[in-house]
Amino acid sequence: MTSPVDRLQVLLQSKMEAVNDLIATRMASENAPRIPEVTAHLVGAGGKRIRPLLTLAGADICGYGGDNDVKLAATVEFIHTATLLHDDVVDESEQRRGRPTANLLWDNSSSVLVGDYLFARSFQLMVETGSLRVLDILSNAAAVIAEGEVLQLSVARNLQVDEATYVKVIRGKTAALFAAACEVGGVIADAPADHITALETYGDALGISFQMADALLDYGGNAGDLGKNTGDDLREGKMTMPVNIAYSRSEPEERSFWERVIGKADVQEGDVAQAVEIMRRHDALEETRTRALAWSAQAVEALELLPAGDMRDTLADLADFVVARIR
Amino acid sequence: MTSPVDRLQVLLQSKMEAVNDLIATRMASENAPRIPEVTAHLVGAGGKRIRPLLTLAGADICGYGGDNDVKLAATVEFIHTATLLHDDVVDESEQRRGRPTANLLWDNSSSVLVGDYLFARSFQLMVETGSLRVLDILSNAAAVIAEGEVLQLSVARNLQVDEATYVKVIRGKTAALFAAACEVGGVIADAPADHITALETYGDALGISFQMADALLDYGGNAGDLGKNTGDDLREGKMTMPVNIAYSRSEPEERSFWERVIGKADVQEGDVAQAVEIMRRHDALEETRTRALAWSAQAVEALELLPAGDMRDTLADLADFVVARIR
Repeated sequence: MTSPVDRLQVLLQSKMEAVNDLIATRMASENAPRIPEVTAHLVGAGGKRIRPLLTLAGADICGYGGDNDVKLAATVEFIHTATLLHDDVVDESEQRRGRPTANLLWDNSSSVLVGDYLFARSFQLMVETGSLRVLDILSNAAAVIAEGEVLQLSVARNLQVDEATYVKVIRGKTAALFAAACEVGGVIADAPADHITALETYGDALGISFQMADALLDYGGNAGDLGKNTGDDLREGKMTMPVNIAYSRSEPEERSFWERVIGKADVQEGDVAQAVEIMRRHDALEETRTRALAWSAQAVEALELLPAGDMRDTLADLADFVVARIR
Repeated sequence: MTSPVDRLQVLLQSKMEAVNDLIATRMASENAPRIPEVTAHLVGAGGKRIRPLLTLAGADICGYGGDNDVKLAATVEFIHTATLLHDDVVDESEQRRGRPTANLLWDNSSSVLVGDYLFARSFQLMVETGSLRVLDILSNAAAVIAEGEVLQLSVARNLQVDEATYVKVIRGKTAALFAAACEVGGVIADAPADHITALETYGDALGISFQMADALLDYGGNAGDLGKNTGDDLREGKMTMPVNIAYSRSEPEERSFWERVIGKADVQEGDVAQAVEIMRRHDALEETRTRALAWSAQAVEALELLPAGDMRDTLADLADFVVARIR
């Protein structure tokens, strides 16, 4: 069983090789050698290159024959890499993709400034495509991403956060760039307006379902099956959908539990299990699952308007794939 | 005696009011109220708004009659504010414009992310002007700025830095955005190519002379007259032009001094005076002054091609003004 990401890699292999070459060329800086060092550390660590694949797939499914898709694919990867560098500073992370983070290997300053450099580089690449519309879409996405991150920071450990705010945060985290990556593929192919909208809707719904599934898995998935890699969100006091739903339905004594753990960051032995217990009691896990699946279904549905074929099937499988672990 | 900056403020008063309004509108974020809080703290602290003034002056001197100059002026101020927010994180600064820095009042994360937001906002504003050329110029400037900052970081306390590298660093620090700010004013006015080049050259030379004068003043100016606000660069181990020249001409025992103070960050009582003494011995202060004045003269000379009048005279006075303290 090959994953849909691997299948996209195969379908778009020669284009992706061009993207990787372009990334390597454009992250260089003869003036400041630390820039390619830091970037290569992160880019070289792999990652699935899902955003450039989405751009290339979007252009391909709309029948694009030029090579600006390669530039845009590199652009979205640069924007993504810049946000990762800045995120690691913000979260004081020490590991990313199984390696020490750049802020740990070099310092916070290098992460901040190399991120800025990649961000500037991404805009240079966009300018080269000559499309103001692409610049519009991706500068809007960049604003939504930064706004979402600031929002997440301001509402950390705040139990009053409503669902709309939570969705804004996860749009900024993933969906905005997924949506823009898909959309610019269609734009550069000069596709009809409804095809472009379909691509944008697909990317947005894909990103949201991915984040919701991720939030659910952090509490052991639908079954609340706690194992390794669970409970991090609770320990970090993140307001994700399962907490959101559970808190809004909690009785007074359950509320005190959330206030201690999320509000006051006082997490004790057994608290993750206790959180899952309250979530189960109020169907919070089940409901998060239902919503994640609905977003995934919406992503698949959006594709229906686009030309049928291998590419469309693989994109549809990708939307299933991100929720496969919670089915 | 009114300063040329104040005179530019008067000449461009109604435009500047529109710029300030636009800045206030565009720094808002209904989703993340912390964004305008952090931005207002910095923008509200004043600062001379020199970059937006340069853009408006550039457009004005080229006879521009539209209102995209206001958008571009707000753009360059946003880019500048974003770099200040990131700089304060990089330098771990605690004061900026006589107030505690945002990273101290809020945290590093807010400074990083609000900077990112303003950067994205600045690109949205540029897109609204519909000019790909403007986007090209300012995304290049943004790359040079980030590159210069990384370069400065990598060569800190490195005595082997040559003059070309030093100029790259100060281009990134000031001259690149000064040059771009001036240039886009001409571009938006659809001015002839040589006028646009003249504006760019003016901004670049203005920025370089400003930085060189600043570096000189940190060692008490041409006379090496140490008072308050001197010696910071030495204590921070910065390789500026006076050190550069002095080190390249130093005898072995003088070199050990530089290696201890700059290379090993071991600064003792009397070291600033000792540095000035060595600089005097090798004409490093005098020579820095000569170069700063030459750059200032080049800025004035570049203006000659542009239409004569109040605006041109004031820009010329501004180039004199930045070196007035070292005459």
